[in-house]
Amino acid sequence: MDKNRPIIVRYGEIGVKSPVVRKRFEKKLISNIKKLIDCKITINQGRIFLFSEDQAKAMESLKKIFGVVSFSPTVSTDTNHDLIKKTVQDYVKDLIEKGEFDPEKPFAVKCRRVGTHDFSSREMAGFCGAAVIEVTNAPVDLSNPEFRLFIEVREDKTYIFHEKIKGPGGLPIGTQGRMIALVSGGIDSPVATYLMMKRGCDITIVNFNNHPFTSGSSEKVIKIYQKLKEYASGSELKLYQVNYGDFLKKCTEDAPPRMTCVLCKSGMYQIAEKIAKSEKALAIIDGSSVGQVASQTLPNILATRYSTSMPVLSPLIGLDKTEISEMAEKIGTFEISILPDVGCGAAPKHPETNAVLEKVLEVQDKIEMDKELEKVLLTLNDIAVE
Amino acid sequence: MDKNRPIIVRYGEIGVKSPVVRKRFEKKLISNIKKLIDCKITINQGRIFLFSEDQAKAMESLKKIFGVVSFSPTVSTDTNHDLIKKTVQDYVKDLIEKGEFDPEKPFAVKCRRVGTHDFSSREMAGFCGAAVIEVTNAPVDLSNPEFRLFIEVREDKTYIFHEKIKGPGGLPIGTQGRMIALVSGGIDSPVATYLMMKRGCDITIVNFNNHPFTSGSSEKVIKIYQKLKEYASGSELKLYQVNYGDFLKKCTEDAPPRMTCVLCKSGMYQIAEKIAKSEKALAIIDGSSVGQVASQTLPNILATRYSTSMPVLSPLIGLDKTEISEMAEKIGTFEISILPDVGCGAAPKHPETNAVLEKVLEVQDKIEMDKELEKVLLTLNDIAVE
Repeated sequence: MDKNRPIIVRYGEIGVKSPVVRKRFEKKLISNIKKLIDCKITINQGRIFLFSEDQAKAMESLKKIFGVVSFSPTVSTDTNHDLIKKTVQDYVKDLIEKGEFDPEKPFAVKCRRVGTHDFSSREMAGFCGAAVIEVTNAPVDLSNPEFRLFIEVREDKTYIFHEKIKGPGGLPIGTQGRMIALVSGGIDSPVATYLMMKRGCDITIVNFNNHPFTSGSSEKVIKIYQKLKEYASGSELKLYQVNYGDFLKKCTEDAPPRMTCVLCKSGMYQIAEKIAKSEKALAIIDGSSVGQVASQTLPNILATRYSTSMPVLSPLIGLDKTEISEMAEKIGTFEISILPDVGCGAAPKHPETNAVLEKVLEVQDKIEMDKELEKVLLTLNDIAVE
Repeated sequence: MDKNRPIIVRYGEIGVKSPVVRKRFEKKLISNIKKLIDCKITINQGRIFLFSEDQAKAMESLKKIFGVVSFSPTVSTDTNHDLIKKTVQDYVKDLIEKGEFDPEKPFAVKCRRVGTHDFSSREMAGFCGAAVIEVTNAPVDLSNPEFRLFIEVREDKTYIFHEKIKGPGGLPIGTQGRMIALVSGGIDSPVATYLMMKRGCDITIVNFNNHPFTSGSSEKVIKIYQKLKEYASGSELKLYQVNYGDFLKKCTEDAPPRMTCVLCKSGMYQIAEKIAKSEKALAIIDGSSVGQVASQTLPNILATRYSTSMPVLSPLIGLDKTEISEMAEKIGTFEISILPDVGCGAAPKHPETNAVLEKVLEVQDKIEMDKELEKVLLTLNDIAVE
């Protein structure tokens, strides 16, 4: 571990919160980082300084820690003109060797300063610029450089870097309470879950196994769970499954066929609410998007959400399928979701698109839905895996 | 109006819906376009052909029609080798003159074909490529061209173009039912409203005027309304305002100070639900994002949403402030939202962050909230403007 090569980690929204909240969020962020990365951490005025033996691995991991807005591997030295000059020159020579800085192309130096010094940020930028020219003869172009060198002076320490790598943003996971996420093997629900993890929520996934109306395989949802778990450092990501086939069978047999999808979704909310009680979860997440499929009309959303008194959060509700798919690719769940799968055999050819609440409640009574769902709950199975 | 210069308009998700739904969506899309653009339209197998006198204006307008995925200004001719050759060559010569095609740089031709022809798509691409070389001598590079020429052969008509301009995507506005949107002068709520308009919803905006706790000016919300209206061709975008100041005064005087924000939001949902009845609206939209401000904690969302039995859709719930601000800039509401404004003087220094439902209901009873909200409703004012 080289104490002169910290990674500077920047976090965003935490910075604007009240001192008490900020302290709590920072503490959680640092604890989440430490659980994933073998490292030492110091914190100084809105920046985390991370020291790790394996920088490459640490940087890959930082891309999966919510709350991290960006980070930069740096070389540090004491705030002393001679030392800064030497460090900058060594830094630049090293980059030229690696082919990361082409001295034929224009460069710029940007300096940021925290603390009291006998020089201005601009003077330090000019000083470092001259140091670079001395060893490279590279042209300067402040407005449109090909290469940017950053000097961050913090009190008696100065940090030199050239990369700002994007983190996932959001808030530290574990700062916002727990939610139940309805997750299928499809493209949407894993993205919805990811977005709420990103906003700091702990998650309990509930998956509905529709066997014999589907293949009944849990492989996809387990793979999705494992992918999402990569982003959950510092939080217990849980995965439950219930057997939903018998309930769906009852729906297809005893209710009007066009109602199956509405009853299915209503039942999911009701099961989720029951599990939420024991999980101390505060809300339900689903992957709904208005108008995407026939069963996701506004009237259907109204009629099904009525089944639960908990808030249902649908973070994809305003997004297009193409936008959701792009997010899924970025997260890494897309390639799992598109694995070949059997469609749900319980879905009718003409699903209800304009569900009327009274009618839905009437049918729910008729099929004794409460009793059926109690049976479903008995099949609750913790399939969390490593 | 040149009948040989149609704009090809592509629409996305509509294509995958059932024939009946598709027909309805296409009809609405065309009607929305015609309300905004003076044009003639024909439709052919999943493509709209738009003929307009003022192509530049038509293209600017198409960027504001939800449902439009992309569009291309084209030159068309009959599907006949001699005519296609001449049209392609004229097209390319014109682009060279305008500086839009540099014959020093590599190009490629891509052909798409619908219908039965005695040539393949590949043959036609080769034929047009040779025609281009004949007049430009430009080099060909199929894998990495600087310039792409598209040939779309549809039965006995052939279309030539080189641009694919992005539309806003989504679904035609007016295909999904009406919603009530809670819109303030801030950055978030206009973006939330835009996203649901984009998913095809008609919108009634309700704005809460908190005077004397704010400046009481309606200027910002009217400007936001006007900006959103640009995207609402074919839908009646409504704007109502209620005077909320007296109610807030009651909250600050008769309820525990830390509860003000929770009561304020609860009241908004209740007013929205009442207005929803007369507007035949099916859901409420707000700009909530978990954890963004102290009052948007999960417990608070739970406690406030309980006030309404309607579904509350929060399309920003999983997004970061930076992501929301970027969207606002793209839409054009950001510059309005950041106009200087007076913060809400009713907000307490330490707002409740962990609201308990029972306690909230108790306080609502104590301040006779129902009665107070009835008074608020009496101030309902339609401030829709042109």
